[in-house]
Amino acid sequence: MENMEKVFTPAVAGMQASAIREIFKLIDKQDVISFAAGIPAPELFPAKEWAKITSDILNNAPAGALIYGVTEGYAPLREVTKERTRRLGAFGDGDELVMTTGAQQAIDLTAKVLLEVGDGVIVEKPSFIGSLNSFRSYGAELYDVDVEDDGLNVEQVEALLKEHGNIKFIYTIPTFQNPSGTTMSVEKRKALLDLAKKYNVFILEDNPYGELRFAGEAVPTIKSFDDDNHVIYAGTYSKTLAPGLRVGFVSGRKDVVDRIVVVKQVNDVHTPVLNQMMVHEYIKNYDYDGHIAACSQEYGKKCALMIEEMEKHFPSSVKFTRPEGGLFILCTMPEGVDAKEVLGDAIAQNVAFVPGNTFMTDIDAPSNIFRLNFSVTTEESIKKGIKILGDVLKKYA
Amino acid sequence: MENMEKVFTPAVAGMQASAIREIFKLIDKQDVISFAAGIPAPELFPAKEWAKITSDILNNAPAGALIYGVTEGYAPLREVTKERTRRLGAFGDGDELVMTTGAQQAIDLTAKVLLEVGDGVIVEKPSFIGSLNSFRSYGAELYDVDVEDDGLNVEQVEALLKEHGNIKFIYTIPTFQNPSGTTMSVEKRKALLDLAKKYNVFILEDNPYGELRFAGEAVPTIKSFDDDNHVIYAGTYSKTLAPGLRVGFVSGRKDVVDRIVVVKQVNDVHTPVLNQMMVHEYIKNYDYDGHIAACSQEYGKKCALMIEEMEKHFPSSVKFTRPEGGLFILCTMPEGVDAKEVLGDAIAQNVAFVPGNTFMTDIDAPSNIFRLNFSVTTEESIKKGIKILGDVLKKYA
Repeated sequence: MENMEKVFTPAVAGMQASAIREIFKLIDKQDVISFAAGIPAPELFPAKEWAKITSDILNNAPAGALIYGVTEGYAPLREVTKERTRRLGAFGDGDELVMTTGAQQAIDLTAKVLLEVGDGVIVEKPSFIGSLNSFRSYGAELYDVDVEDDGLNVEQVEALLKEHGNIKFIYTIPTFQNPSGTTMSVEKRKALLDLAKKYNVFILEDNPYGELRFAGEAVPTIKSFDDDNHVIYAGTYSKTLAPGLRVGFVSGRKDVVDRIVVVKQVNDVHTPVLNQMMVHEYIKNYDYDGHIAACSQEYGKKCALMIEEMEKHFPSSVKFTRPEGGLFILCTMPEGVDAKEVLGDAIAQNVAFVPGNTFMTDIDAPSNIFRLNFSVTTEESIKKGIKILGDVLKKYA
Repeated sequence: MENMEKVFTPAVAGMQASAIREIFKLIDKQDVISFAAGIPAPELFPAKEWAKITSDILNNAPAGALIYGVTEGYAPLREVTKERTRRLGAFGDGDELVMTTGAQQAIDLTAKVLLEVGDGVIVEKPSFIGSLNSFRSYGAELYDVDVEDDGLNVEQVEALLKEHGNIKFIYTIPTFQNPSGTTMSVEKRKALLDLAKKYNVFILEDNPYGELRFAGEAVPTIKSFDDDNHVIYAGTYSKTLAPGLRVGFVSGRKDVVDRIVVVKQVNDVHTPVLNQMMVHEYIKNYDYDGHIAACSQEYGKKCALMIEEMEKHFPSSVKFTRPEGGLFILCTMPEGVDAKEVLGDAIAQNVAFVPGNTFMTDIDAPSNIFRLNFSVTTEESIKKGIKILGDVLKKYA
């Protein structure tokens, strides 16, 4: 079957496997201090509670957990999720919500219902590669705007909206952004929403980290200011409970969510019911808000330690963000330094991070930024790893 | 946001929610004898075994089950699945395999990597609506060919391949087809493969029911005759273990599967690891082949009983298939009778089935066929329900 000219659709043929996940494979094989992760600390997963929950379900009433479920999601979890999302101001009248197989599926199916080949999406620079690749897989054009300390550059957004008539939505992670760790100001949230209204495009607000605040004051979701259904909102239990369960959700105006349900039906029929029940029974029977507070406190301690060690050991030419929540710190090296090259040196010293090119629309261009995760590593490894990394960075200062 | 002209991509805007799943919602609300299901019997799920398995995993070594996994799938299950697929002649040299979130995702992601708007797919008439809707969601043209007692009409396939240059693959469920219950002969399998080679298109062989044989002789998979990588093979643990776990797979030539991995990464990152471990630990520690044999025997008894009752109570003008495995019997009423109308009457008598239009490329056209499931209902309900259905059918004889 060699002479088959066009096996793959062009959008898919041009895709590359996530560089982050390729790095993970490398790290798995070595005894490396990894700051490359993007996950909560495994020792904080409520595993014992889930052992009891799954045992109860599978011993006493297994059928409901093991037969097909409805595409919209396990009804009790869907209700709890609506209620929690409403508390964040992110679920309004006329909105609907569907449980998804992780927030990644929320992003991907939203893209599928909205994007045709040649449509445009405004994205943050840097941004989450999984979302960028999803948009690419439907043949979308990506237009990027800078992320500043108080969120994306709104002027750049308007310039792009003026210039390009093909833009369908603006994709943003406004709170504890991945990879920058920064949070968009209220002013910018309102300005962005005004632009979405003015140019009649959607905002896809991706908020996986928003509940993991360990400092500063809560900032309302963009969705909470949305009086005209311009915001589609994606959330997840991956960062507060366990990413491996793959339980997320997407909500927004009913006609959009109804379409997402239809494409989810042909994508995976439904998110596994047992996994949804594990999340629901945990929230119902245990102190989920207390768990989130405890996780946030732990991450805050580790973040503070990491910044303290970075201040001690990093050359002053390396700048970094000071997040008030989430999982990540973003570092910026002097112009011209290539984070991929630095990563090679760091891995030779058994320390890993994620180089900036993987967060860019052009992943082949060199980037002088890199992302550090502080949630997974032990305090001892943070001290040891940051010192090693500091020595590596001095060569590039 | 009312004046936004084209919110949805045209392919997605034209999709309808699965009529089968809409029927399920109706049935859920009533005390109905349902022959509409498409699932194994819940009392045969190894729930107690999984209670022990999940308890062991979550109490003793939870992290691996709850953190992110690799997109390709949980390695031990992937190996076992390759081995079992190899036993069916369906995994060859140069092939690769990726675990998916149910076989639905295997179908959907295969479609995504192969189909552009305007590409063609040859499908069986009748066929599985979830697959047809997935192909539609990428803007594909569907061309249908009749399913006969020994499988699809091969002459019709060749005529379509001659006429339409846009065809990318032929989609078939060759063994215990859904909804017909029929099995394609070896001769037709070989002829179909020859056509795929001659016209340089893929075959997507969907085999969810193949292991559930309760009569007759095993027929080799189409893939087992494939010496030139024209067959992409989709399988699942949904019909032998539990559909709610959402664990399936797709295998075939490496470059195709590699592309599927890339789009799966942006679709749901990976299939939940705990669910994959549940399947793997069950296969490793218990008698999975014995379980399949026991399920098949049970379904064979129920199928025989249903046919016996149908022969007693159905008017002779209603014809039906006599499957040697799987979960379904297909009934054909006299020309001009509309199964949707009959369903209305049957539901009024608290009996449900799936009307034929839901298995067609044109779901709005009336159809004189309907599908009966025999795996889920008790023997008592089969007797009672078939008698009631026979009385309903007599009005249309």
